[in-house]
Amino acid sequence: MTVGPTPADRFSFGLWTVGWPARDPFGDATRPALDPVEAVHKLAELGAYGITFHDDDLIPFGADAPTRDRHIGSFRKALDETGLVVPMVTTNLFTHPVFKDGGFTSNDRDVRRYALRKVLRNIDLAAELGARTFVLWGGREGAEYDLAKDVRAALDRYREALNLLTRYVLDRGYDLRFALEPKPNEPRGDILLPTIGHAIAFIDTLEHADLVGVNPEVGHEQMAGLNFTHGIAQALWQGKLFHIDLNGQRGIKYDQDLVFGHGDLLNAFALVDLLEHGAPGGGRAYDGPRHFDYKPSRTEDFDGVWASAAANMRTYLLLRERAAAFRADPEVHEALAASKVPDLATPTLAPGESYADLLADRGAFEEFDVDATAARGFGFVRLNQLAVEHLLNAR
Amino acid sequence: MTVGPTPADRFSFGLWTVGWPARDPFGDATRPALDPVEAVHKLAELGAYGITFHDDDLIPFGADAPTRDRHIGSFRKALDETGLVVPMVTTNLFTHPVFKDGGFTSNDRDVRRYALRKVLRNIDLAAELGARTFVLWGGREGAEYDLAKDVRAALDRYREALNLLTRYVLDRGYDLRFALEPKPNEPRGDILLPTIGHAIAFIDTLEHADLVGVNPEVGHEQMAGLNFTHGIAQALWQGKLFHIDLNGQRGIKYDQDLVFGHGDLLNAFALVDLLEHGAPGGGRAYDGPRHFDYKPSRTEDFDGVWASAAANMRTYLLLRERAAAFRADPEVHEALAASKVPDLATPTLAPGESYADLLADRGAFEEFDVDATAARGFGFVRLNQLAVEHLLNAR
Amino acid sequence: MTVGPTPADRFSFGLWTVGWPARDPFGDATRPALDPVEAVHKLAELGAYGITFHDDDLIPFGADAPTRDRHIGSFRKALDETGLVVPMVTTNLFTHPVFKDGGFTSNDRDVRRYALRKVLRNIDLAAELGARTFVLWGGREGAEYDLAKDVRAALDRYREALNLLTRYVLDRGYDLRFALEPKPNEPRGDILLPTIGHAIAFIDTLEHADLVGVNPEVGHEQMAGLNFTHGIAQALWQGKLFHIDLNGQRGIKYDQDLVFGHGDLLNAFALVDLLEHGAPGGGRAYDGPRHFDYKPSRTEDFDGVWASAAANMRTYLLLRERAAAFRADPEVHEALAASKVPDLATPTLAPGESYADLLADRGAFEEFDVDATAARGFGFVRLNQLAVEHLLNAR
Amino acid sequence: MTVGPTPADRFSFGLWTVGWPARDPFGDATRPALDPVEAVHKLAELGAYGITFHDDDLIPFGADAPTRDRHIGSFRKALDETGLVVPMVTTNLFTHPVFKDGGFTSNDRDVRRYALRKVLRNIDLAAELGARTFVLWGGREGAEYDLAKDVRAALDRYREALNLLTRYVLDRGYDLRFALEPKPNEPRGDILLPTIGHAIAFIDTLEHADLVGVNPEVGHEQMAGLNFTHGIAQALWQGKLFHIDLNGQRGIKYDQDLVFGHGDLLNAFALVDLLEHGAPGGGRAYDGPRHFDYKPSRTEDFDGVWASAAANMRTYLLLRERAAAFRADPEVHEALAASKVPDLATPTLAPGESYADLLADRGAFEEFDVDATAARGFGFVRLNQLAVEHLLNAR
Repeated sequence: MTVGPTPADRFSFGLWTVGWPARDPFGDATRPALDPVEAVHKLAELGAYGITFHDDDLIPFGADAPTRDRHIGSFRKALDETGLVVPMVTTNLFTHPVFKDGGFTSNDRDVRRYALRKVLRNIDLAAELGARTFVLWGGREGAEYDLAKDVRAALDRYREALNLLTRYVLDRGYDLRFALEPKPNEPRGDILLPTIGHAIAFIDTLEHADLVGVNPEVGHEQMAGLNFTHGIAQALWQGKLFHIDLNGQRGIKYDQDLVFGHGDLLNAFALVDLLEHGAPGGGRAYDGPRHFDYKPSRTEDFDGVWASAAANMRTYLLLRERAAAFRADPEVHEALAASKVPDLATPTLAPGESYADLLADRGAFEEFDVDATAARGFGFVRLNQLAVEHLLNAR
Repeated sequence: MTVGPTPADRFSFGLWTVGWPARDPFGDATRPALDPVEAVHKLAELGAYGITFHDDDLIPFGADAPTRDRHIGSFRKALDETGLVVPMVTTNLFTHPVFKDGGFTSNDRDVRRYALRKVLRNIDLAAELGARTFVLWGGREGAEYDLAKDVRAALDRYREALNLLTRYVLDRGYDLRFALEPKPNEPRGDILLPTIGHAIAFIDTLEHADLVGVNPEVGHEQMAGLNFTHGIAQALWQGKLFHIDLNGQRGIKYDQDLVFGHGDLLNAFALVDLLEHGAPGGGRAYDGPRHFDYKPSRTEDFDGVWASAAANMRTYLLLRERAAAFRADPEVHEALAASKVPDLATPTLAPGESYADLLADRGAFEEFDVDATAARGFGFVRLNQLAVEHLLNAR
Repeated sequence: MTVGPTPADRFSFGLWTVGWPARDPFGDATRPALDPVEAVHKLAELGAYGITFHDDDLIPFGADAPTRDRHIGSFRKALDETGLVVPMVTTNLFTHPVFKDGGFTSNDRDVRRYALRKVLRNIDLAAELGARTFVLWGGREGAEYDLAKDVRAALDRYREALNLLTRYVLDRGYDLRFALEPKPNEPRGDILLPTIGHAIAFIDTLEHADLVGVNPEVGHEQMAGLNFTHGIAQALWQGKLFHIDLNGQRGIKYDQDLVFGHGDLLNAFALVDLLEHGAPGGGRAYDGPRHFDYKPSRTEDFDGVWASAAANMRTYLLLRERAAAFRADPEVHEALAASKVPDLATPTLAPGESYADLLADRGAFEEFDVDATAARGFGFVRLNQLAVEHLLNAR
Repeated sequence: MTVGPTPADRFSFGLWTVGWPARDPFGDATRPALDPVEAVHKLAELGAYGITFHDDDLIPFGADAPTRDRHIGSFRKALDETGLVVPMVTTNLFTHPVFKDGGFTSNDRDVRRYALRKVLRNIDLAAELGARTFVLWGGREGAEYDLAKDVRAALDRYREALNLLTRYVLDRGYDLRFALEPKPNEPRGDILLPTIGHAIAFIDTLEHADLVGVNPEVGHEQMAGLNFTHGIAQALWQGKLFHIDLNGQRGIKYDQDLVFGHGDLLNAFALVDLLEHGAPGGGRAYDGPRHFDYKPSRTEDFDGVWASAAANMRTYLLLRERAAAFRADPEVHEALAASKVPDLATPTLAPGESYADLLADRGAFEEFDVDATAARGFGFVRLNQLAVEHLLNAR
């Protein structure tokens, strides 16, 4: 692969990723603040297409109006100069101590009201900048202690907040959809809506459910030991994959936010295959930005920051190439067929068949040769080995 | 506590629990088969109210019609003699090798048809025996290898199956609802619908979603590191807690199926409080059976089996008692108020307030004293310590 | 229980625990700095016996000599006024960015030398203050990327450091032993010497292995899904339990540092039983300080800080009381005997028996009734239920 | 890569791997028993070098002497015909119900004696067949309940057993060493000696510690979230890597025993690099058999069994090739140097330098430029990306 990323690949990065000063729970910052303007220019040079931000990434918390305008102005200018777009914006409801028990679901009603106001203000900015997705990561919406949070009341408040926000966007005529970002824990002991599933189940109860989807992050699902690619497939199936956060995680532990592919590489391969080739067949399954929400390791200086940003994109492109070769390989086609993978697309009932017909089909039960069927192998290991070998570029 | 369990407590057990012969992946059975009739009598003596079963627990797989009738007949007789009821029935789609790639979502269409037939047959039996809930644990619906299962097609087939089953039940006029039982993994590397959230999100896409809910199991959610009590609260909030499986699990590892309370005791305390007292207030949150889906440890003989069955019920009753004392303690009330737990039930917007009103409320944002609010402590640790002390009966 | 903790209970706290300003990876501090002098006075009032610290907790990093002396002086004065002792001291090799790749095992030799100097300086202070244990938590000794750290070379450097430190202490005649504190990950992706076992195995290779033991922390072992009480038992068995860090953790996730008992309560019960009653019999197994290394939750103000400090001690005392009752209960004695728990103390060979004698004993093999033995139940569930009921004070 | 495995690669397989009938905790066997003779022939054809077994894999439990001899005879004949060797033998102390509470550490002394006899008998067979390593996996040595096992007494009994076994082997003049295989849990709730570290720490207390090492298994360490390659590096460092079990595991869950590389592929790459190239430099770090202890998935028939056996070897060879290219790449050398990876081999003290010299070196502390050093990046992400790209064969 000799060609690098281009805006057509739709790679985007959060300002807070390359701009992370690398402070962690046990250590002080190892890098100085990064000027958002520099981030825009540098990412554009590397071939990115978009940049995203929390309000407080761009504008210091509590800044007065002129300061705010100045920050937005210089950022816009950099966007104009580079052609970088802002496909997504989000609000920080977790850093300031006022959110220590959450934003939309804090036990303190004043905090809930303040959180709504903070989000509303940033929605206006998102719309102004042309963003089409507004992400909500409720990292502080949760609890450490089971009896300290009335979870059902919290979900009522969460719904109240989302209903208000969707009404606002509709009334203003903004072309903006919301994407909830699930996470099981950290910084709270248990976070509400901990997985893709819980978030979609919740969304289905909203007034304008069609305006709300999910923004799953690789590491967040893997922190619960869940298969990220399975989760994305279900989100796609439910029509709810509005945005995606790509990164790397090495198992069930604290949130690592490594470079995409620097964690579970096999699952990353299957993910890219799904997004790009709609595994096991068909076209592209997802058209939105390929958004990297990672952290350049605390051991790195700015050279390392930019090398890591480039690594995310390069790994994605390599996996895309490997997946294309996998899908083009006749032996893979044969192995998929032997494993009956495509057969799962065939309905279980024949066209027009009712349960009464099924009940009358003696071949389906009374005369079904259970043992002969049970004896047939599925050939899944061989299929997986083909995937491994394509990944290793060994075929 | 001197009084033991009575049928009014609605405790039920699976035939496969006390009847588990204690074969595990590395060991042969340590106990002989248990006659279902004896299980019924013994559980009735211990104070249980109900018994549940998979088809194959009661009737050997592949039995002919007369054998089947004989098994059902003697079981019914035992029920009549003891007054034990059958609140729930389920189908085994996992033990026989034919289901090695799943039932409803096997890549093999013949298996999918066979699975539907096996379930339909057992639904008839469930209705006959007066069961009100039909549980579906799709333990084999999944994959070890990401490219060997088209997850979106699998969810199509899962939906097709559920739609067929609900139509059948409606047409037959059975008073029977379905409850899906999520599990993240084991025996498959990754199981579809891995958590309460994924299952409810899926259910919302069904033709007769109102007939389908969840049957969460303590250990299954804890195998993903999720807070079981939070999950149950969301299931209740979504109106989907149709049944519950109580047991014990000690962290993220293989499925242990310990006695209820022999795992995360603090979470079990919060769970009983939620089910019985609708924490943090209000009445009973769940009225269905308190169903124990556990395994008497492989080290035990039949004395140990019955001691373990009794232990489940006794622990539940003790936790119920401790939770009642917690809820009655004035210091707890004061602590809850100090932690603003009840305040979360107050809507964030005032009655009739619109987002425009909120935007106009300078006290909510422009004049909000962020720092003063941030400085206030929530007192959650003190509240949790009160819970611990009530659990320890130390107040 | 009406009596509170007294110094005779030997409870100690880290300065960094009650003094934690509650900054986390996603949030700013919610509490101001706490004056160490105030910490000493307050902990003494609450009934603690000791206080411990990292150099940088007491003396700001990089302080000049007069500043350093002033801080030490006011701290000493507070100790004198309250009678609080300093049983343990430790060095911070993780907060400053210079340690971003570790201290003793940084890839950068200059950092390794600096780290040794920082520790040596604090050892002198530890000895001056009468500490008997010097803890080393190598939280930054590790890596995120497998090929970026030569683990064998790192262990060489770790050993080199420990050998130097023990020689120093011996030469100076300090009555001070070292205790390594294992942790599997966080803040590094993988930390060297990740568990109690790895640390003891490493220690056995040191020049003065007798001067080096472990300081296990509840949550650290539980972050690897390991049984903390088992780990402590092995550490005791190996003569290496030099110090202990008590706190609470709710499963495999980020390091929570909850109050002792606010995590896995059953395991905490077994731990206190082991420490206090040398389970399953015999005397006290550990005589050192009961050191709480926890963090008052970020939601708390200073009232919550002190309530949480008190909660640690009260929970320990309650568990000690429950364990005493458990050990005094004749039914427990009977159950332990039925489970053959005490029989494990009987050697497998008879006194004087050789393997040749064993080979000649036909009753041990040729005539051993395997099936009859296999059929006997161990009664472990009943025994565990007795423990649960004693914990719940229900007997 | 066109050349397949040859005996020179020293690949070996357990009889119980390809012979696994695919019974799991929720399912019956999907494959018939495999004749050991066929296993020998088939593995030889595939290019393996060795085969290993538990006594009960080869000879049915409880078989009489003639039956035993017959099984051994036909197995030997197959070995002779194929040239396959038996580098390792082990004893099954976990399948039969008599071992339900363990073998060497069962609470039942009669079981402990029986277990020793069973092992002694198989040691004789191992020596006869020329095995050089005798593995002991104590999968049943553990507990579900903390108060049901006196861990210190259990470790006494474990030591007693190992001391007896080593004396036996020495007295008989067998050229045989023991290798303990750690596992954190499953089938017991918690297993004794749960990790590489705990096992080595235990070994150091034995009479003939030099005769006892470890046999770590990829999945077992990963079930505790530990970095397998780090663990192997420590085992090598301690001179205790006597044997190794290669397979695949996808995170913290039940023991999956997938094909090597079908789990954490990046860690597998680093492992092969360590074993073959003694990362980060130097020669081969391990010369023993590359032993696959995996399970062909339950979905497979015998074609799938043999395909999976071949996949283990092929993946290993591919990773060996990729690692060789990585080590040969000048850019990798440069990146390693930039990351100071080789510098960790340089002692922290200069030759002849004492701690007094270090204390006198003002450049090490008083005049050390902490901030300048802290500002330097280590370039670890770039290095890891080079590894990923070599793994993907993209350079």
